[in-house]
Amino acid sequence: MSGRPRRGKLWGLGVGPGDPELITLKALRLLRAADIVAYPAPETGDSLARAIVAEYLPEGIEEYAIRMPMVVERFPAQEVYDAAAADLGAALDAGRDVAVLCEGDPFFYGSFMYLFGRLAERHSVEVIPGVSSLTACAARLGSPLAARNDTLAVLPAPLDDAVLEARLRLVDAAVLIKVGRHFGRIRALLNRMGLADRARYVERATMATERVLPLDAVAEDGAPYFSTILIHSRGEAWT
Amino acid sequence: MSGRPRRGKLWGLGVGPGDPELITLKALRLLRAADIVAYPAPETGDSLARAIVAEYLPEGIEEYAIRMPMVVERFPAQEVYDAAAADLGAALDAGRDVAVLCEGDPFFYGSFMYLFGRLAERHSVEVIPGVSSLTACAARLGSPLAARNDTLAVLPAPLDDAVLEARLRLVDAAVLIKVGRHFGRIRALLNRMGLADRARYVERATMATERVLPLDAVAEDGAPYFSTILIHSRGEAWT
Repeated sequence: MSGRPRRGKLWGLGVGPGDPELITLKALRLLRAADIVAYPAPETGDSLARAIVAEYLPEGIEEYAIRMPMVVERFPAQEVYDAAAADLGAALDAGRDVAVLCEGDPFFYGSFMYLFGRLAERHSVEVIPGVSSLTACAARLGSPLAARNDTLAVLPAPLDDAVLEARLRLVDAAVLIKVGRHFGRIRALLNRMGLADRARYVERATMATERVLPLDAVAEDGAPYFSTILIHSRGEAWT
Repeated sequence: MSGRPRRGKLWGLGVGPGDPELITLKALRLLRAADIVAYPAPETGDSLARAIVAEYLPEGIEEYAIRMPMVVERFPAQEVYDAAAADLGAALDAGRDVAVLCEGDPFFYGSFMYLFGRLAERHSVEVIPGVSSLTACAARLGSPLAARNDTLAVLPAPLDDAVLEARLRLVDAAVLIKVGRHFGRIRALLNRMGLADRARYVERATMATERVLPLDAVAEDGAPYFSTILIHSRGEAWT
């Protein structure tokens, strides 16, 4: 008697912010149990998410790179995810388990949501949360993110100054993410708002190339995409 | 020739939101390397942070419970942390390595900041970030927290309605933490603001006692301290 064929599982694995040791036991176990490991990658060259777990990849595991063309428009990205969802969906239908690697956490500003949106309705999906850049940056800066009844805002730096300023005025603590090429404008805004002396800068937290710098030591065009500024109204007083 | 005695290290270990498998490899390694493991605990009974790592504790490791009296005032807590910092500081001076267990992440609304504020100046402290309840709740709800250029707010539920409402109006996504006994008031606020149909409720995410419920299925006084409401203006549209 042959029953209905088993359908595969899709795991969205948070692999943490960069240090390979910041993966969880659960993500590592599922990575090793998967039939296929998929990950976002640039058009050419290496995937950061894959690099984080490179030392843990089982020999001979099938790999699937989701390669994103270097364009600004949104539509090509949609096509790339359509194609990836079709391929991975077919593998799931064939009973294969697929692990998708996600830098940090899959549901915290990650590209996993594009696959999730396309596959969650028809397939069994489990998301394994990971250490996000949010708390990794705080740890590396040696500075608590928020405590007690603090309000905390996560603000993508590409947003307009007016949007950022209104939100910064309303919170006790803030994290500006994706600073990158917006660094000069953000620093000027923080200076105007009188927040610069409570701001801390870190790039590529927990990676081998991590740098922690005073805000005024960062070159105007020197911040990489994975750079973050933490601000807390409490400054240094943590007792 | 005997040099200066080696001084101990203090590790603030994020042990994740509850599922023991959501600890990182790094936190587990340092837990096993420590001479003393310290953790917050209620006045009587078990420590949640200790329970998360119970299966990993090395046999015979020295344990130090930081027991918090059941009072609302802040001063007794200050005295408890003064005493703990004195004891653990003496152990560090004697060259012993101390791991302090922190539910979730040490710098994300954790009590570790009280020890950090007292010990970081005189001692070597390293914080190991952990999976926070923030992303664990999103994973368990099967609902992305934030994406693209979304603004995200983390809002402690004990804050006044007016404070919460002003911040909820300004963001794309919000997480209400420490909901507990404030549940009824928060649900009424979300109903008034027309946000209730985009809100999702989870308690004790990733713990054995986890519950995911529709907002209107939660009893008015039935939410535990570790209960969380996620709201996203995008609703279910994630593609």
